[in-house]
Amino acid sequence: VYEVIRIYGGKPFTLAEHLQRLERSAEGIKLDLPYSRTVLAVEIEKLVHKSQISEGMIYLQLTRGACSRNHLFPDCATVKPTLLFYVRTLPALPEAKDQPGVTLITMPDERWKRCWIKSIALLPNVLAKNEAISKGGDEALFIEDGLIHECSASNVHAIIDGKLISPPPGPKVLPGITRQVLIRCAREIGLDVVERAFSIDEARRAAELMITSTTREISWVKRWDDQTVATCVGPTTLRLHETFKLAVQQETRTGERASTAPKLAFGCR
Amino acid sequence: VYEVIRIYGGKPFTLAEHLQRLERSAEGIKLDLPYSRTVLAVEIEKLVHKSQISEGMIYLQLTRGACSRNHLFPDCATVKPTLLFYVRTLPALPEAKDQPGVTLITMPDERWKRCWIKSIALLPNVLAKNEAISKGGDEALFIEDGLIHECSASNVHAIIDGKLISPPPGPKVLPGITRQVLIRCAREIGLDVVERAFSIDEARRAAELMITSTTREISWVKRWDDQTVATCVGPTTLRLHETFKLAVQQETRTGERASTAPKLAFGCR
Repeated sequence: VYEVIRIYGGKPFTLAEHLQRLERSAEGIKLDLPYSRTVLAVEIEKLVHKSQISEGMIYLQLTRGACSRNHLFPDCATVKPTLLFYVRTLPALPEAKDQPGVTLITMPDERWKRCWIKSIALLPNVLAKNEAISKGGDEALFIEDGLIHECSASNVHAIIDGKLISPPPGPKVLPGITRQVLIRCAREIGLDVVERAFSIDEARRAAELMITSTTREISWVKRWDDQTVATCVGPTTLRLHETFKLAVQQETRTGERASTAPKLAFGCR
Repeated sequence: VYEVIRIYGGKPFTLAEHLQRLERSAEGIKLDLPYSRTVLAVEIEKLVHKSQISEGMIYLQLTRGACSRNHLFPDCATVKPTLLFYVRTLPALPEAKDQPGVTLITMPDERWKRCWIKSIALLPNVLAKNEAISKGGDEALFIEDGLIHECSASNVHAIIDGKLISPPPGPKVLPGITRQVLIRCAREIGLDVVERAFSIDEARRAAELMITSTTREISWVKRWDDQTVATCVGPTTLRLHETFKLAVQQETRTGERASTAPKLAFGCR
């Protein structure tokens, strides 16, 4: 299992939420965290501080440990999990209005049914993403039984009838941390939020489509297959991205963080 | 992608078939073999010879190569695939009549839809297998929409109305090499072979159930969840296993091998 955490202004953003998701992912594969979330947070913050990286990301990976190849879990008395994390720089994203917009390419959803686990077994996602790129897109949009769930490396959302429609975490949707922040931002600006998957037809007539991820933040959708969705960022996506930027500033400048991470809404436990 | 190839009497068994499957798996993930199948076979045989291992297995793994983490395929002009193979000893299996029989535990099939690709992204298989073992079983039997496709690390087959019923390779079934040999053996002994998935009801009334894999060969099923399937190896499974052993002897003693590997029956290309 793994996490990608953004560093803004030399501080990790939503670190507590990422570590909470890491713990849920680890539970999902029957693995205990080798250290408490508190200890992990302290060690990660030390590394970020030591690196002197201002704009960047933390990659963290937890695996079951080194052992002879076997499908059976090793004896945890002798085999200890391998924990790895590193930081690297990442260019700051342009303002939403200056972003070029993304192109989504529809792909059948051939992934497994526990996508709420953030696992490194990403082969289906990687194959879909590369196929989308070979077709001139930026991201693969997974569709199953006519319903839109998420993209290969981002959550997808729509503005329909003035509401934010966002597929909830579950078998086919990762509980995105940026998605969580997006929903918080939507509520802050008085936007109704409905957590449900949406159909292809609904998506076709949506006022705005957007995708979210830790490295993309909130990106507006320009094209979807052969259809032009928008020619510039939509007003709601723009407001949401501005609110998101404020949330980043508030948390990383003041070091303010919820004493307990907000409860994750997994639909599948 | 990977392969596990059995060594009998110091010689790899069905090496050509395994390398053909490796090539198809690699194609499935858009990866070229770094060497031809002929060169790979020669190098593997050299290693087996050098190891002086008589009863054992070859593990072979081909990955896209070492590169900075990115979902995008690296530029293949600069990043070369990583090919790894090793040999190790493996105890010879007892005769079919002396085998204890296996217990299958039903699990929902939550895997992806390209199981014909033998990929190292085995998390769903590993989770199912460990859950099956924690419930007192040996293998997880994946069932989807009432149909039986395969197990977590083996193909499954049934003797129904005097015929061998074997789910064909496809989205949910790996093209097992031992399965191929089983089908060849069945035809040799005049048993009708029907390649199709079978229902839970059919499996409940099957005369015999068996599973096949490179490391298990042909194993008879003793229990399935709370149901006793058989108290000893069935007559057809026994004959098939004896015929299988003869096929192993014939190929590994004489070094005889088909000049062209038999065509794999993928249902999904």
